Amino acid sequence: MKELSHLDKEGKVRMVDVSEKSSSKREAVARGSVHMKPETIQLIMDNAIAKGDVISVAKIAGIMAAKKTSELVPLCHPLNVTTIVVEITVEEARSVVDVEATVKTFGQTGVEMEALTAVSVAALTIYDMCKAVDKEMFISDIMLMEKRGGKSGEFNRK
Amino acid sequence: MKELSHLDKEGKVRMVDVSEKSSSKREAVARGSVHMKPETIQLIMDNAIAKGDVISVAKIAGIMAAKKTSELVPLCHPLNVTTIVVEITVEEARSVVDVEATVKTFGQTGVEMEALTAVSVAALTIYDMCKAVDKEMFISDIMLMEKRGGKSGEFNRK
Amino acid sequence: MKELSHLDKEGKVRMVDVSEKSSSKREAVARGSVHMKPETIQLIMDNAIAKGDVISVAKIAGIMAAKKTSELVPLCHPLNVTTIVVEITVEEARSVVDVEATVKTFGQTGVEMEALTAVSVAALTIYDMCKAVDKEMFISDIMLMEKRGGKSGEFNRK
Amino acid sequence: MKELSHLDKEGKVRMVDVSEKSSSKREAVARGSVHMKPETIQLIMDNAIAKGDVISVAKIAGIMAAKKTSELVPLCHPLNVTTIVVEITVEEARSVVDVEATVKTFGQTGVEMEALTAVSVAALTIYDMCKAVDKEMFISDIMLMEKRGGKSGEFNRK
Amino acid sequence: MKELSHLDKEGKVRMVDVSEKSSSKREAVARGSVHMKPETIQLIMDNAIAKGDVISVAKIAGIMAAKKTSELVPLCHPLNVTTIVVEITVEEARSVVDVEATVKTFGQTGVEMEALTAVSVAALTIYDMCKAVDKEMFISDIMLMEKRGGKSGEFNRK
Amino acid sequence: MKELSHLDKEGKVRMVDVSEKSSSKREAVARGSVHMKPETIQLIMDNAIAKGDVISVAKIAGIMAAKKTSELVPLCHPLNVTTIVVEITVEEARSVVDVEATVKTFGQTGVEMEALTAVSVAALTIYDMCKAVDKEMFISDIMLMEKRGGKSGEFNRK
Repeated sequence: MKELSHLDKEGKVRMVDVSEKSSSKREAVARGSVHMKPETIQLIMDNAIAKGDVISVAKIAGIMAAKKTSELVPLCHPLNVTTIVVEITVEEARSVVDVEATVKTFGQTGVEMEALTAVSVAALTIYDMCKAVDKEMFISDIMLMEKRGGKSGEFNRK
Repeated sequence: MKELSHLDKEGKVRMVDVSEKSSSKREAVARGSVHMKPETIQLIMDNAIAKGDVISVAKIAGIMAAKKTSELVPLCHPLNVTTIVVEITVEEARSVVDVEATVKTFGQTGVEMEALTAVSVAALTIYDMCKAVDKEMFISDIMLMEKRGGKSGEFNRK
Repeated sequence: MKELSHLDKEGKVRMVDVSEKSSSKREAVARGSVHMKPETIQLIMDNAIAKGDVISVAKIAGIMAAKKTSELVPLCHPLNVTTIVVEITVEEARSVVDVEATVKTFGQTGVEMEALTAVSVAALTIYDMCKAVDKEMFISDIMLMEKRGGKSGEFNRK
Repeated sequence: MKELSHLDKEGKVRMVDVSEKSSSKREAVARGSVHMKPETIQLIMDNAIAKGDVISVAKIAGIMAAKKTSELVPLCHPLNVTTIVVEITVEEARSVVDVEATVKTFGQTGVEMEALTAVSVAALTIYDMCKAVDKEMFISDIMLMEKRGGKSGEFNRK
Repeated sequence: MKELSHLDKEGKVRMVDVSEKSSSKREAVARGSVHMKPETIQLIMDNAIAKGDVISVAKIAGIMAAKKTSELVPLCHPLNVTTIVVEITVEEARSVVDVEATVKTFGQTGVEMEALTAVSVAALTIYDMCKAVDKEMFISDIMLMEKRGGKSGEFNRK
Repeated sequence: MKELSHLDKEGKVRMVDVSEKSSSKREAVARGSVHMKPETIQLIMDNAIAKGDVISVAKIAGIMAAKKTSELVPLCHPLNVTTIVVEITVEEARSVVDVEATVKTFGQTGVEMEALTAVSVAALTIYDMCKAVDKEMFISDIMLMEKRGGKSGEFNRK
């Protein structure tokens, strides 16, 4: 029977014990989108054209947040990531800013939560920089796209 | 003309200077949803019935994350919140877990980012506890619902 | 009827809402003791005589931990302390190291938890420096001694 | 001759150099107790019966604090724990809440300080939730119970 | 007689007690320089021309570090800054990158350490991005330029 | 052609991917100096003679900051250091306080940034304790002295 992680038999919380898992290369890719008004998208595009910092700030926020994942998500294992890449794409036609994060490590647990945290905080940072002009923005479709390494094997979202 | 926050005239990043703003009571309410399979929803409901910890862990993660907002979002001002409430509701019919956060402060800047951060991290924590059984989950509709206090006045999402 | 803090009517967690409380000067004093073998006490005293760093390290650890209280204790309100003093006394006769912390602030909530956190972490730091020679040590009697300011008035442990 | 850890020959502070130690499985168990009035114990028990969050909050606080140990205790080595379990038991007869933490890792240093930190912060969190009704509480007998792995061998408190 | 801060009469450490100081507007400006080879300067300039992120990353690192000052400098008071501006200028002729930080707050203590921390960490970040090509770099002349507000009055470095 | 670290081909930021690098013993030594007035140097020397805490506080600040390096420098990889030693020397003749930090690890990346961060924050801490008596102080010559381990080989500043 399938069971939630991080719980003992009585449903009480504990961290999964990964002491017996062997270390292996692990990678995860996550995505999410910030939806906003066309005028707001335009402001971000103008900023990018003018060599502005908006996209850079969001990328760095995502990278730094991924390193804080185990401080934020209570039952996450601390681990030393070997790389974090955050890509941010302005999609004018769909009026969204897309965020994609790729995280790798060599360790006993996966890095899905690190990738998802990077996406979430990069998206929040975009929100923060645009909130004065557009309070209707929303962040959607934060999801795992790919996962490699570890016993549970490969995952690719269709 | 409307402009992005936290940028100087050349589009370069700086924190908004709130030195001249007067302190006032401020409040923000944000929401978001974790979408999952009906079987996963059922596991969370079973855990709640069994006095399990799943909902509690997510609530506390949200509360603690709200206090870290200015560490996560690069241009956010640090502030001392006066309360953070995180409500988590399992919506069996829609197959989602809804998260709502309310944050208050007395200060020179608003607490939208704190409320949105609480929602995001509570949602990530639910994701973390369910990811072993459901990798297709996604987090959507993270948005500001209400905002009170400060010069820009009240906001209520329709 | 007396009730636990940080809980709603259903016993679910939330931070106490201090939005309506007025700011005032607040102060708290807490204490605790690290019990150890006479030989271990002697090593700490020798270190102090030799201008060693053991006591200093523990004091600074306590001071820095007090500033992290709201990151550690989930429902604590963040606040800006105005002073933290940690006193450490080696009591050779009782074979203990006593720790006392005094914390002050001007704000809407008290600083008991800050004082208790300072004591706890200073005690853990002494433990850490002595653990190679004395694994039987224990930390006891961490308690609030005095509290001033705020609506609940003054407290003095008898 | 026995010597304090983390000190050079002049008694000055430095982190122990574990560069030459080999990695091995390590485990530590620590304990502590929060003493309180019978009425306060009763409130915690009532909360637990009502599926309240008090025990959960303290457990999560302990787990999250264990991950912060090297940030709190100045000379502790950072390490990646493989599990943290915090058990909290209400002992009505003795009028105490007992906290026990078990921490494991695979690494070059032990996890005693992580287990002791988990216990200390879980105890402080219980204190925080009860302090409005019982200012006389105290935290005692924070101690190492068991330790396995590493060159210094096994320790079991009698 | 002039005396060091944060020390009691015996030279032992304590945080300065600012409980009795009144809150006022405060501002500090600090500066520092990263010295490097002309080839390294050229690479940074090329990156800037290509709309690269080097300067942005360093600025954001400085801003985020200023918010962490009281976590880094043991006796610093926590405070809520109202703005942080970090300016980075590439000085080709002198073969240096200059960093200047301006920090403001409304509070009981000054923000010199926040400004100096912003400069230091922005400089370290530039170092980090250039270290693969230039190990001879050095960071110099980190200093306070201006200070306003508070009882000790205005300071302007000549 | 030599290239800046942490950048992709378009000059955009990403963490270097060290997934394929093998772990090895790594060590780095960094240095820096705080320049001050002779009277200020005298106060520090008097404090040291009186078994005061000034030097201890700065050492501990440096050690603790080294453990935070990857939180401060955005593109630094998190790693578990195996030792950090901070030496502080008062040079009366030159009217400076010299700081030297040695950091070791076993891992996939070097520890230059950890050593430089330790030096920077120890220097800032000295500044903080002396700033009431000497606002003209400055921190200079923060630089890497030695580096061992890893593919890029040994570095010794001449």
